[in-house]
Amino acid sequence: MKKITFLLAFGLLAIPFYSLSQTKLLTATDAAYMNPAVFPASMRQLQWAGNSDEFVYGKGQNVYAQQIKNAEPVVLFTLKTLNSDLEKEGFSALKRLPGLTFVTQDEVLFSNKDTYYQYDYKQHTIKKINQVPATAENMSLNKKNFLVAFTEENNLYLAQDGKVTQITHDTIKADVNGQYVSRNEFGIEKGIFWSPTGNAIAFYRKDQTKVADYPLVDIDHRIAKLKDIKYPMAGTNSEHVTLGVYNIKTGKTLFLDTDSGHFGKWDHYLTAVTWGPEGKYIYTGILNRGQNHMWLNQYDAQTGKFVKTLFEEKDPKYVEPLNPLFFDPSNPDQFIWISRRDGWNHLYLYNTDGKLIKKLTKGPWEVTEFLGYYPGHKVYYKATKESPLQQNVYSTDMRNLKIRRLTPDHGTHSAKVSKDGRYILDSYSSTDVPREYKLLDNKGKTLRVVQKDKDPLKDYKLGKMKIFTLPSPIDSVPLYCRMITPPDFDSTKKYPTIVYVYGGPHVQLITDSWLGGAGLFLNYMADHGYVIFTLDNHGSENRGKKFEQVIFRHLGTEEMKDQMAGVRYLKTLPFVDTTRLGVDGWSFGGFMTLSLMLRHPHVFKVAVAGGPVIDWKYYEVMYGERYMDTPQENPEGYKQASLLNYTQNIHGHILMIHGAVDPIVVWQNGLLFLQKAINEDKPLDYFVYPQQEHNMRGKPRIHLMNKIRTYFDDWL
Amino acid sequence: MKKITFLLAFGLLAIPFYSLSQTKLLTATDAAYMNPAVFPASMRQLQWAGNSDEFVYGKGQNVYAQQIKNAEPVVLFTLKTLNSDLEKEGFSALKRLPGLTFVTQDEVLFSNKDTYYQYDYKQHTIKKINQVPATAENMSLNKKNFLVAFTEENNLYLAQDGKVTQITHDTIKADVNGQYVSRNEFGIEKGIFWSPTGNAIAFYRKDQTKVADYPLVDIDHRIAKLKDIKYPMAGTNSEHVTLGVYNIKTGKTLFLDTDSGHFGKWDHYLTAVTWGPEGKYIYTGILNRGQNHMWLNQYDAQTGKFVKTLFEEKDPKYVEPLNPLFFDPSNPDQFIWISRRDGWNHLYLYNTDGKLIKKLTKGPWEVTEFLGYYPGHKVYYKATKESPLQQNVYSTDMRNLKIRRLTPDHGTHSAKVSKDGRYILDSYSSTDVPREYKLLDNKGKTLRVVQKDKDPLKDYKLGKMKIFTLPSPIDSVPLYCRMITPPDFDSTKKYPTIVYVYGGPHVQLITDSWLGGAGLFLNYMADHGYVIFTLDNHGSENRGKKFEQVIFRHLGTEEMKDQMAGVRYLKTLPFVDTTRLGVDGWSFGGFMTLSLMLRHPHVFKVAVAGGPVIDWKYYEVMYGERYMDTPQENPEGYKQASLLNYTQNIHGHILMIHGAVDPIVVWQNGLLFLQKAINEDKPLDYFVYPQQEHNMRGKPRIHLMNKIRTYFDDWL
Repeated sequence: MKKITFLLAFGLLAIPFYSLSQTKLLTATDAAYMNPAVFPASMRQLQWAGNSDEFVYGKGQNVYAQQIKNAEPVVLFTLKTLNSDLEKEGFSALKRLPGLTFVTQDEVLFSNKDTYYQYDYKQHTIKKINQVPATAENMSLNKKNFLVAFTEENNLYLAQDGKVTQITHDTIKADVNGQYVSRNEFGIEKGIFWSPTGNAIAFYRKDQTKVADYPLVDIDHRIAKLKDIKYPMAGTNSEHVTLGVYNIKTGKTLFLDTDSGHFGKWDHYLTAVTWGPEGKYIYTGILNRGQNHMWLNQYDAQTGKFVKTLFEEKDPKYVEPLNPLFFDPSNPDQFIWISRRDGWNHLYLYNTDGKLIKKLTKGPWEVTEFLGYYPGHKVYYKATKESPLQQNVYSTDMRNLKIRRLTPDHGTHSAKVSKDGRYILDSYSSTDVPREYKLLDNKGKTLRVVQKDKDPLKDYKLGKMKIFTLPSPIDSVPLYCRMITPPDFDSTKKYPTIVYVYGGPHVQLITDSWLGGAGLFLNYMADHGYVIFTLDNHGSENRGKKFEQVIFRHLGTEEMKDQMAGVRYLKTLPFVDTTRLGVDGWSFGGFMTLSLMLRHPHVFKVAVAGGPVIDWKYYEVMYGERYMDTPQENPEGYKQASLLNYTQNIHGHILMIHGAVDPIVVWQNGLLFLQKAINEDKPLDYFVYPQQEHNMRGKPRIHLMNKIRTYFDDWL
Repeated sequence: MKKITFLLAFGLLAIPFYSLSQTKLLTATDAAYMNPAVFPASMRQLQWAGNSDEFVYGKGQNVYAQQIKNAEPVVLFTLKTLNSDLEKEGFSALKRLPGLTFVTQDEVLFSNKDTYYQYDYKQHTIKKINQVPATAENMSLNKKNFLVAFTEENNLYLAQDGKVTQITHDTIKADVNGQYVSRNEFGIEKGIFWSPTGNAIAFYRKDQTKVADYPLVDIDHRIAKLKDIKYPMAGTNSEHVTLGVYNIKTGKTLFLDTDSGHFGKWDHYLTAVTWGPEGKYIYTGILNRGQNHMWLNQYDAQTGKFVKTLFEEKDPKYVEPLNPLFFDPSNPDQFIWISRRDGWNHLYLYNTDGKLIKKLTKGPWEVTEFLGYYPGHKVYYKATKESPLQQNVYSTDMRNLKIRRLTPDHGTHSAKVSKDGRYILDSYSSTDVPREYKLLDNKGKTLRVVQKDKDPLKDYKLGKMKIFTLPSPIDSVPLYCRMITPPDFDSTKKYPTIVYVYGGPHVQLITDSWLGGAGLFLNYMADHGYVIFTLDNHGSENRGKKFEQVIFRHLGTEEMKDQMAGVRYLKTLPFVDTTRLGVDGWSFGGFMTLSLMLRHPHVFKVAVAGGPVIDWKYYEVMYGERYMDTPQENPEGYKQASLLNYTQNIHGHILMIHGAVDPIVVWQNGLLFLQKAINEDKPLDYFVYPQQEHNMRGKPRIHLMNKIRTYFDDWL
């Protein structure tokens, strides 16, 4: 593949050069990531083992450790010895290495199907520590007492030595305990929260009885069957979420008093659920349904009573709490709160009285992830300080606020900080590097390159990629753009050109990562002779609050202003065939694709829109109302954004695609658009993937890659 | 348009000639019959008024009568006078002429919404005779006593002077009373049968509790909603049908004893439901689920008890009773039974002892409809005696079996015989005549041309149509074929050619009727430069039992042998571009289209298959098991016919189309095929019509015409 040199400047940022050994073209199977050979090799199960003396990882059938001071990997144990130790105790052998949790250097926890084991690989002793029913889901193992909380259907259970206690007893299926709520918005990924002592479990309960059923049809039965899902559409009845606390000693469950008080009396969300370090209090952010006012509240875990509001956050547009409280291990009265209140995500050090002790970070850049403490001294985090395209790891000294960049290489990093905060396992990719693992000290010094992969695409003939910026017509802010030109590009020829778009919040398509963030599908398209252009418009990720909130209450409109600046730029390029412009996107990108095709008619000749939102009133409450308010509150905004109001502009060739059982953007969106287009006798192409959800997976993804490519081949 | 002269001979049958005044080409709107101007004008509400003295019909806002002896139409009344008479009595006026039933020359019954009226237009007196609830369905007015039987949801009701009596009290929605059963197979169109005296109502009850639900999704709600239908798939649990009898005097309901006896103890169908002329007995054909054995049974309407089996019909393949018993008004002990027992549908005169008195018709042709009696003397019926392409009206003298053809003009006739049997209102079209109405006497003498329409397509430039035959490769029987060549046809050029196919039982595409039975869609395609070829293969309608039953247990296979004979013929024609053959069909024709594309790969380049059955096990019990037996009984036949087993042969360009809420060929068919093709990475095009059933109606039909045409334009 091409190597890209990366140069941060306004204008043309990257000057790529060729390596000449490539011959293969990418296939649809490659583009669908169904060929393992095209992935950069990743280190499985990379983790710190106990403290900071060594880290472990799996490779093949072996588990390795590396000491900080010794680069030579040591085999800790193999699948073979693990199986022999299992069988010695009469347990079933495993087919492959299980997921491992190193509690100390010697003590490993893992599970096989429904059984949990503790393994001392040095002593070769293994014992069963718990068991759950085969139908258990959402298992959460407490590493201290080996209890496992889990769900079955809609209720929460606890297993101890294989004995199961039912915690909740809801008989109505729509009342769900111990699972994620709010459709995974607000950073919510789970519904079980162990107390720090292991004596109690906090859990989400969602009452969905007022939420409408959306009917999906499962055709993989002898006779097709209904599969209802709960789907709260914008402006309609939503979930009611509460937080239960189960006391393991008393066997009693109470619910936090989150429904009373001015902050709780309306529809609201419970975000940022965090146990206080001593297990006495639970903190949660109560966010009103309008999503513009949050109260960070403290509740007594023993009584459920409201203790106090630590602070509030308000915003004329919206507040979006995405993270829990990060308590300082060396000071249980202090925690870090991540807030965008000054326009950028930054770290704020609070105490449990609700007093802001210190703002730890500042500046026109985003903290993207809190990574941990060097207890009492420093915090580690990821941020976009060098460039919105990069995510590096930084430390800030809590005493003097001195910042230090720790990751030496430009690119997009992820990191695991050792428990004592002294070392960092850095994993990154960049426009230069497919994937590299490094061991760093806490000053950013590279102690060792742990793994550096070969380019998995080195034998492929890929297009040339460059990243550059264009000024936004909205506020002249530089917008990042990426262009991939086909292999054997000849600037004197004219090429059909496709704008690949997403454009919605929380997504950034262009990054300083492998292939510039483009993924193989776009390179596959470039291999087939297309110039591929992408621009991250206002609203997209990692550019600060103002940049994002421009889109508030009229999704699509401002985003398109930026995208059209991209189109104007394309039209200045001699090698872009401006009579052969295409546009393609999925999900929010499907919405943008159709918006661009219909609200700026005759710019594009061909559009392929996958899983598109057609009218935001058919999208869900949590995400939809954040950006659009309710249809009742913002009828004009909904009307302006609804693609149902632009069917008269259908022209050229439009292919719409939807997964028939999409539970995210429900199919009603695409079908209503199609119905209206049909009734107006507008030509349109349509494709549906049976039994597929919001994104095509597996073999259907290969078919999809071919489908999109041939559609552009046929019509562009 | 072109005029066709029609010449019955083996080989080339029609030599058309041009008229040169045409300029317009057919549009998609014309092809969808959404332009009223392209219909031949029909006479609305044409009927005999009481006896045979005059017949009546509506035209504009007026109701006319013509006396037998006076060609001059007389206005009986107008909407204006009707409304003035209605308003005089305080009733609401009407916006257009209602559906009229002339009980005598003066006495007219009609209904407006929920109210029934009796009108004497001579005396200008109008009175309300009954009323049903606004939610009533399946209303059945008894013209003697003005009682109205009707259904609401799943129960049967009776209204008398507006007072409603509930007859059935089923609380389970799947138990349905008074509605059609057996999915309209076996000629069943209704579920309410008034006794001749009006003292009792027989009604179908279907217990569908064991029939599976099939989920349809209605997207025209704020949030899409489930709309379950009962859909018994081949080999699965079916309906259980019984016949209730409600006695109006006693208010009691009993059920006929149709479940006991060897004929009733298995799954079975109740067909040919007929009251004896005196209202004492009810006759029904009990047909086993295997559909190869029917018992024509008599039941006592007062007790429900089985009286006797009049006769049985068996067939190694299947028996298909489609008609009730036709009792002779002059002899209540005699009736006519239509049977295909000798290989052709013919009339059999029976008495109520079950004795066959006389076979009234015979020969290698089909009686297609029983029209009535000249009481005691003659029977009138339609038959294919001249040609399988024609349907003429005949009389047979019951005494000497002398046949007389009554309709003088070749073509496809329908007829209304006057009550006394002396006159016939003949309506027909033919390859020469778009639509003509004639008054005939009962010897076939034309007394008057009542209406002859101008050709509604006279200004259109249409292709040339010819009808001819080819010998079947199965048994050398001549197969009827129709070819439409494009306007301005030049036999030295090569044309893309589309085979339009149906191929299933009970349908005949080629007839001696207007446009040769082709309809405007095929002419629209010809107008766009295609040669359109159609062949009625073995299995299709009106060619006798043997011709039809060849298809038994392996649908598709024999039908294709005939179709491929058509393809071989096309390949002999210099003007057919054999590299550009397409195939198109809907429903059974969609099944045939895909079968031809996949089981004879690389013959056709492009296929468009609408609403196709993909695997007969996803089709319904009644129709499916008649031709295929159950999947358990005939696994090889189902396997051979299933298109799921031929996805590896997908090639060329295939467009599949389905209505998203098709309750006839459920969408599971198309989606399963699509899913398999996707998993095998086979290219395929797909289109779905939201909220549309088995056939596209209204505006979606215009879109469909365009869709099919452009698909062939793009790829053929």
